[in-house]
Amino acid sequence: MASEITELPHPARSDMQLTEVLFALSDPERLAIVRQLADGPMEMAQCHLSDPSMPKSTKSHLMKVLREAGVIRNEALGRGRRLSLRQDDLEARFPGLLGSVLSASTEV
Amino acid sequence: MASEITELPHPARSDMQLTEVLFALSDPERLAIVRQLADGPMEMAQCHLSDPSMPKSTKSHLMKVLREAGVIRNEALGRGRRLSLRQDDLEARFPGLLGSVLSASTEV
Repeated sequence: MASEITELPHPARSDMQLTEVLFALSDPERLAIVRQLADGPMEMAQCHLSDPSMPKSTKSHLMKVLREAGVIRNEALGRGRRLSLRQDDLEARFPGLLGSVLSASTEV
Repeated sequence: MASEITELPHPARSDMQLTEVLFALSDPERLAIVRQLADGPMEMAQCHLSDPSMPKSTKSHLMKVLREAGVIRNEALGRGRRLSLRQDDLEARFPGLLGSVLSASTEV
């Protein structure tokens, strides 16, 4: 019998807070995750951190901060989890913000 | 005899880090300071925090985080200090970022 896969809570677009989004984006590892997801949704297992020595619990926490701020969706998909960037919601709520962060971070 | 007024260090434009700038902007009080300075430079003494009960040391720390990230300049001016937003440097380094944050934060 498959273990239960939890559906995690996500903030509604209108509940996203600018400072929480900025905070979520302010960490190099979290920003690296966002950049990977800018190319399209991916399986959690395929999403890699810059520092491969980081424990799985750290990766989970990074995902949690991004999800709770409204930056990413983390949804059950089969036995795994599918991560996606909430680009439309972010653009509607904070126009231009994600684009400027992604453009800037490619140069860093 | 006037007390010595310290010239504080500021990062060069090329040394500004995206994640540090995002972190500096990710706090409501720091963001409120940035919004005040978006209208032009001001004396430190005139710059007010949303929460007037905050101690002066907290205000100094908020200014330090903003200055060290490269978001503001904090310069000696007479017996006081003059704060200014480094809009040109931010725009050159991270095009569109500050504008999108300021636009978004007016709606919050």
